Amino acid sequence: MKELINKNENKILLVVLDGLGGLPVNGKTELETANTPNLDELAGKSELGLTIAVDYGITPGSGPGHLALFGYNPLKVIIGRGVLEALGLGLTLDEDTLAIRGNFATYRDGKIISRRAGRISSEENKRLCAKLNNAIKTIHDCQIEFYPGIEHRFVILIRGEDLQEEIMETDPQKDGLPPYLPEALSLKSKKTSEILKILIEKGAEVLEDEEEANYFLLRGYSKLPKVENFCEKYQLKSLAIAAYPMYKGIASLIGMETVNRSFNSWQEEIAELKNNYQNYEFFYLHFKEIDTAGEDGNFEKKVFLIEKFDSLLPEILKLNFSVIAIASDHSTPALLKSHSWHPSPFLLYSKFSRSCGKIKFCEKSCQKGSLGIFKAKKVMNLLLAYSQRLKKYGA
Amino acid sequence: MKELINKNENKILLVVLDGLGGLPVNGKTELETANTPNLDELAGKSELGLTIAVDYGITPGSGPGHLALFGYNPLKVIIGRGVLEALGLGLTLDEDTLAIRGNFATYRDGKIISRRAGRISSEENKRLCAKLNNAIKTIHDCQIEFYPGIEHRFVILIRGEDLQEEIMETDPQKDGLPPYLPEALSLKSKKTSEILKILIEKGAEVLEDEEEANYFLLRGYSKLPKVENFCEKYQLKSLAIAAYPMYKGIASLIGMETVNRSFNSWQEEIAELKNNYQNYEFFYLHFKEIDTAGEDGNFEKKVFLIEKFDSLLPEILKLNFSVIAIASDHSTPALLKSHSWHPSPFLLYSKFSRSCGKIKFCEKSCQKGSLGIFKAKKVMNLLLAYSQRLKKYGA
Repeated sequence: MKELINKNENKILLVVLDGLGGLPVNGKTELETANTPNLDELAGKSELGLTIAVDYGITPGSGPGHLALFGYNPLKVIIGRGVLEALGLGLTLDEDTLAIRGNFATYRDGKIISRRAGRISSEENKRLCAKLNNAIKTIHDCQIEFYPGIEHRFVILIRGEDLQEEIMETDPQKDGLPPYLPEALSLKSKKTSEILKILIEKGAEVLEDEEEANYFLLRGYSKLPKVENFCEKYQLKSLAIAAYPMYKGIASLIGMETVNRSFNSWQEEIAELKNNYQNYEFFYLHFKEIDTAGEDGNFEKKVFLIEKFDSLLPEILKLNFSVIAIASDHSTPALLKSHSWHPSPFLLYSKFSRSCGKIKFCEKSCQKGSLGIFKAKKVMNLLLAYSQRLKKYGA
Repeated sequence: MKELINKNENKILLVVLDGLGGLPVNGKTELETANTPNLDELAGKSELGLTIAVDYGITPGSGPGHLALFGYNPLKVIIGRGVLEALGLGLTLDEDTLAIRGNFATYRDGKIISRRAGRISSEENKRLCAKLNNAIKTIHDCQIEFYPGIEHRFVILIRGEDLQEEIMETDPQKDGLPPYLPEALSLKSKKTSEILKILIEKGAEVLEDEEEANYFLLRGYSKLPKVENFCEKYQLKSLAIAAYPMYKGIASLIGMETVNRSFNSWQEEIAELKNNYQNYEFFYLHFKEIDTAGEDGNFEKKVFLIEKFDSLLPEILKLNFSVIAIASDHSTPALLKSHSWHPSPFLLYSKFSRSCGKIKFCEKSCQKGSLGIFKAKKVMNLLLAYSQRLKKYGA
C-alpha cells in the first residue's frame, strides 16, 4: 500500500457524523425523515455505500468504529478500557503510562458492600481524587495520578518503566464479596502487581474516614496500543477537529495532530477547519451530538441535528476539498437507544464519482449506492484513490 | 465472539427451504413465478440479501451449505463422504465409528468387471447386507455393520478404538482393472488397514455364490469431524426439526437436539415446532421437497411447493418469534436439475429491520436488499444481533 502512494496537493475531508444510521419509526428512519436538500444534492454527485466497521451483526464501540474508518483492523488494534476512559477525560498518555479504571467502593469487614460507593456524586469524586493526589504522588519509581470522572468512576495513571497490563482485576463484580488482589497474571507483571497492592493499601488509608467511598476497585489495566502512525502510513499531514476528548484521544493515539481548544458549537468546529485549511492535507471532523440524541432515544432531536448539519454543509463545501467523505463510526437508532450493528451510511464526493443525479441521502440510497456494502477499513483506500494519491498496482 | 454473547429469552427460527433459489425459465425464476402474498408481506418488514455458502462460483453440497448457515467454515469443517452417506441413512455414529461407502461390484479373474454389480436393485442390496451382517459381526475388537442404500450403494460402520481415515480407496474407478487393497496411507492407519483387508476377504467369501454382487469396493473412509458444539458456541438451546435423516444428522453432528420421529407433511413439522416452542431458544426447521423438485427439473412443482410454503407461513408467524430467517443451503434451479452456485435468497425478519414496504420476495429483491450479497457463515452473527444477544464490541 505504502509503495503505491503518490503525494499531491489534493485535500481530503472525512466528516464523522457519530451514530448517523438509524431504524424506521413510523416507516421512516431519522435520515429519511430529515429535510436535507444540501446533503441530497451532494449525494447526487457522490458515490454512496454502507460501511461495516467490525463484522456483520457486530455493534462497534466508538473506538473500533473510528479505527476502522482510519484504516486499522479493529480486531487487531485494541484500545483497552483504561486507555479509552483516560482519552475520554482528555488525559495525555505515553508509551510508559498504565491507565486504570477506578471505581470508588464501600468496604466493610473484608467485603465490598457497594461496588459504586452508593453512586456518589461527581463533586464528591473530585474531592476524593484531590485528596488521593495530595497523599499519594509516587510509589517506588512510578508517578501516580488520580483523575475524577462521572459519579463513582475515576482514572488512575501510573507513569514509569516496565509497567504491564496482565494484572487481575480487583472488582468482585457482585456486592457482598471480598475484592480480589491485583495479582500478577504473568511473570513480567510482578513489579506492576506490587505497586498496585501498595496503591490499594495506601488508598484505603487515605480514604479511611470516608463514610461511603472508603476503598477503590481497579479494572481495565491498559497501555496505549502500538499502532502504525496514520500520517506516515498514508503520507498525509493530518488534523483532527473534535469537541469531545475521546475522539481527540483516538486521533492522537494514531498520530494525528489535534486542535487543543474547546468547541461550543459545530460552527466553531467548521471555523477551525477553515482556519487550518491551508496547513494540512487530511482533516477528520467529528460531530458528536447526533449519536447522543440516538442514545437518548430522541428521534426528533436526531432528525433536527441531521437537518442542522445539512444547513452547515454549504460552508464546508465552499472550502473546495478534492474529496469529502461523510461517514459514521456506527449506527445509533433512536429506536434502540444504543449503538447498533446496522451498517452506516457513507457518502464520498469527488469529481471522479459515478454519480446518479439528485437523490435522497439515506440508508436506502446508500444501500443501493455505487460502493455497496463494504468494510469501513477500506474507506482510507477510497479517500486516497479519489484524491488521486494511489499509483497503479502492477503494470 | 463468545465474549459478546448476552443471554436473553428472544426466540430465533431459521427456516431452510432446501434448494430455494432458481433460474429464469420463460423470463421468470421459480420464486418470481410463484404467487406468495405472505412471503411478500413478510419481506416488506425484513432485511433481504443473498447468501454465498462457500465461494463465488462454488456449488455447495448439502453438508457445506448447512454448515455455513450454522456459522461454520465449510472449508474447515469437512464431513467425509462415508459419514454423509451414513447420516443420510439415519445411522448413529460416535467418535469411535469409521464410516465407509461400499459399492457392490462384480469380480472375475482378479479384475472388477462391473463397479456397480450391474446396478443391482435396492431389494437385492437389502438381502446382501443382511447376509453380510449375519456372517460378519466382528473383526478383531471391532464391531462391523452393513446398511443397505440405493441400488449398489451401502454403508459399512466399523466401531472400535483407534480407527483411522488414511486408507487407500479400493475402487479402481474403471471397469476391467483390479481393485486396490485398502493399504495404510499413514503409520497410524496400519491397524485399520488390516481390519479392512480381512473385511474384504471375508466379504468375498460370504458373497462367493452371488452372480453379480460377489465383491465390494470401499471409498470415503471418514469419522465424525470435530466441531465446536453449536449450542455452546452461541449459547442457544437448539432444536432441529427435519424430515430427512441427512439433515437431522448434520444438526446432530454439531450438537443440536433433533426430533426423533418421522414427518409425513410440512404441516406435521410445523405442529412439532409449535409443540416445542416454549422449550428451546433456537429452531432449525428444514423443508426438503423444493430441492427435490429442482433436482427433477420440475419447474412447476417447485413453484407449487413454494406457494405451499407461503400458505403455511401464517401458521409459523403466529408463534411470535423475535427473529425469523428464511434461508437456503444452496440454489437448485429446475433449469439445471441440480444444485448450483447461484447465491441463495435470504430473508431476516425482526422488529429492528430497515424495512421497505411490500416487495416481491425473489432473487432480484434479495439482491437489492439491505444485507447485500454476503457469506452464509455470517447468518448466525445476524440472528444473534437481531435477537439482541450481542454486546457492543469495544467501547
